[in-house]
Amino acid sequence: MRLDDVFLYLDGHFEEAIGDVVRLCRQPSISAQNVGMEETAKLVAAMLEEAGAKARLMPLPGGGPPVVYGELAGNSPTTLMLYNHYDVQPPEPLELWSSPPFEPTREGDILRARGVSDDKGDIAARLAAIKAFRAVRGSLPVSLKFCIEGAEEIGSPHLMEFAEKNKSLLKADCCIWEGGDVNWKGQPVIILGVKGILYVQLEAQSASRDVHSSKGATVPNAAWRLVWALASLKDSEENILIPGFRDTIRPLSPAELGAARDMPSEEEELKQSLGVKRFVRDVHGVDFRMRHLFEPTCTICGLVSGYTGPGAKTVLPSIAKAKIDFRLVPDQRPDDILAKLRSHLDKNGFQDIKIAQSVEGENPARTPLDSPFVSLVGDAARDVYKMEPVVVPTSAGTGPMFAFTDVLGLPVASSGVSYPDSRVHAPDENMRLSDFDKAIKHMAAIIERLGRQPGV
Amino acid sequence: MRLDDVFLYLDGHFEEAIGDVVRLCRQPSISAQNVGMEETAKLVAAMLEEAGAKARLMPLPGGGPPVVYGELAGNSPTTLMLYNHYDVQPPEPLELWSSPPFEPTREGDILRARGVSDDKGDIAARLAAIKAFRAVRGSLPVSLKFCIEGAEEIGSPHLMEFAEKNKSLLKADCCIWEGGDVNWKGQPVIILGVKGILYVQLEAQSASRDVHSSKGATVPNAAWRLVWALASLKDSEENILIPGFRDTIRPLSPAELGAARDMPSEEEELKQSLGVKRFVRDVHGVDFRMRHLFEPTCTICGLVSGYTGPGAKTVLPSIAKAKIDFRLVPDQRPDDILAKLRSHLDKNGFQDIKIAQSVEGENPARTPLDSPFVSLVGDAARDVYKMEPVVVPTSAGTGPMFAFTDVLGLPVASSGVSYPDSRVHAPDENMRLSDFDKAIKHMAAIIERLGRQPGV
Repeated sequence: MRLDDVFLYLDGHFEEAIGDVVRLCRQPSISAQNVGMEETAKLVAAMLEEAGAKARLMPLPGGGPPVVYGELAGNSPTTLMLYNHYDVQPPEPLELWSSPPFEPTREGDILRARGVSDDKGDIAARLAAIKAFRAVRGSLPVSLKFCIEGAEEIGSPHLMEFAEKNKSLLKADCCIWEGGDVNWKGQPVIILGVKGILYVQLEAQSASRDVHSSKGATVPNAAWRLVWALASLKDSEENILIPGFRDTIRPLSPAELGAARDMPSEEEELKQSLGVKRFVRDVHGVDFRMRHLFEPTCTICGLVSGYTGPGAKTVLPSIAKAKIDFRLVPDQRPDDILAKLRSHLDKNGFQDIKIAQSVEGENPARTPLDSPFVSLVGDAARDVYKMEPVVVPTSAGTGPMFAFTDVLGLPVASSGVSYPDSRVHAPDENMRLSDFDKAIKHMAAIIERLGRQPGV
Repeated sequence: MRLDDVFLYLDGHFEEAIGDVVRLCRQPSISAQNVGMEETAKLVAAMLEEAGAKARLMPLPGGGPPVVYGELAGNSPTTLMLYNHYDVQPPEPLELWSSPPFEPTREGDILRARGVSDDKGDIAARLAAIKAFRAVRGSLPVSLKFCIEGAEEIGSPHLMEFAEKNKSLLKADCCIWEGGDVNWKGQPVIILGVKGILYVQLEAQSASRDVHSSKGATVPNAAWRLVWALASLKDSEENILIPGFRDTIRPLSPAELGAARDMPSEEEELKQSLGVKRFVRDVHGVDFRMRHLFEPTCTICGLVSGYTGPGAKTVLPSIAKAKIDFRLVPDQRPDDILAKLRSHLDKNGFQDIKIAQSVEGENPARTPLDSPFVSLVGDAARDVYKMEPVVVPTSAGTGPMFAFTDVLGLPVASSGVSYPDSRVHAPDENMRLSDFDKAIKHMAAIIERLGRQPGV
């Protein structure tokens, strides 16, 4: 095989690669709490330099944790962009961790730490592959650029502006995304897209203060106002009722439909894991996968009003709040949906309901299934994992992919260290070292193939 | 005037009466937190004995704070029942008090303490009037019975059973209720009824745990289930949609309608105090008073689901809860409304929504406006307050009056120490000493008139 020399080096230096993950995970970097961001950015830049790249911290237009930008020239001008993030989710609730979240703990094949799977393991996998190439062959067959942000877990604010402002600096030919994983069968999963997001808080205020509930016949109630406003957004058949909500949805391509049809189904596992008897609209099989991947959503993430403690309190609340998450599909846009939401509430008599945007919206993005780069990443996966890759047209989740697909015009596909029990965002986040090894080699194989097929 | 001797004594012993209020208020008695209940019951019994009554603690059928029962024989068998309660609302939030809630603080005409107005000032007013009669005249012209419970602030559980079980012990001719007040103009307000209550918690559970909101297209959401269930209970025009909800409502009597028409309106003050632009259905004047007094309600007192902190969390909640307070009017019954609520939810596809009753329901109660006892209490008020009393067919609030009106068959009317800024249930609860003086004298005048008009 073309990479025997590189893989042999990797096998001999696996503990060093693990050492890099441990080093990254020991350094907390909680963007939501602004903990350790500058320190982690500097550590990541130093590690890029150790791998031979030139690295620097670049501020985002709106402030916040800097982007670690890096460049490493190879033997061809073909340039591969590597998108990752060095920030992690808050570790709370701490009491549910088997070991302290920022003290990486190794048990057999498992390495447990906050961020090990999302996304520090991916960063370390990229670096290990690069180091091996340089050690064995002296150089890389392609050029690399690194864009490692520190605000992914808080919605990547201003990353799109950053990409627009630095278009020529960030020029590349293709992009490897974070968060790739294997499924329960061990098949590598290659993700080509993300949903967008609009996250808002609706707030009803009916009076300047709460009053005794005996006044309920005459005094307006914020909780009721909010309930009626919410019920106007989506009916119990799960139809989103905002006029024009679906207007800009792009029809699915035959390839996308085919991919959803051919994907292995994991719905029974999900049902069992969640104790759910039936899914929304009782969808099964391909209908389940179609909804999961391609349907936009309107999800209540939080609701609060009045008295929420034990027992009874006879109070009439003056304020009620709901957090709502709309996941968007191409070509929906958060600003457009926000305007339609406002207009819908106004037309239905809910001018009093305030809308606040909790985080910046993100656009949905997808790379076409027939992109040559997708085939290349799949072929590299087949070589390394010795199993047929599962190519998924889009994740149901969200990320700042639009900045790369649409602003920079790159085909994007994922590669990474995760597996279904990685527990990302949850206590006991972990990575299997065997998956880490495969992800490093997948990265190496992508680089090697790209050197041979520069035309992707 | 017939009571000059008694009033002269009262004026000379006012500080003693204030001393009794202070003594009662220094003793915390928070039924919701089970703080100081037994101690307070004993103190109240001791104070009844000091006033010449025989007192004892009687357990309620279901346990909880005991009833302080007392008897004081007078010169006639005509018996006046005095209903009061020795428990108070929790004092929280403590930081909003100008002085510690259980350290009664006197400032000019104001005495500030938790429970001073609701309902320890009323208890002390009854005792001061009785002591004055006995000191000046040696005895009372009528017999008295005391029923002073310790669980009014937690919905008076089992008090109706207690009344049923002790019908002959509690036999009387009429009953003075707690919570009487004066309005802003200084007119004494005499209340003849209460609304009933059904307080429930609705709970939706859609899965065994919360999941990432990216699963919103397929995984059922408890918050949405609850919103849809709630929206099925009452529409945005404030129509309660539970079939049969109004079936047992007794038509209003011409006297009740007349009383609502003739009542002074305080709606503008309420609007201003709450910063409310318009009331429910934009009611004004007599329509406002009719709704306030005679309409049953369905009030959301609390709502909670998912993430309710600052910023954004992309979570799909598995549990959602609402607390709902139905205020009922004669002859609605909490058990009947509960059954109709269950049936309504079931018929609308909400079999999954659990209903838990947070506190025991209470029946509504009213004493007819044309009861001779009502005239007597009004006449006594006219004598003391030198103003026309306002007779109100019912409070919009709730209390265990049904046990007295319907189980014991007594006419009931209120007398008490409160005024519109008493802040009952709120921080800085207070009583004006001038109102306390009037309430003592009103009590004395009722006793005196009852001695002359035993046939009420």
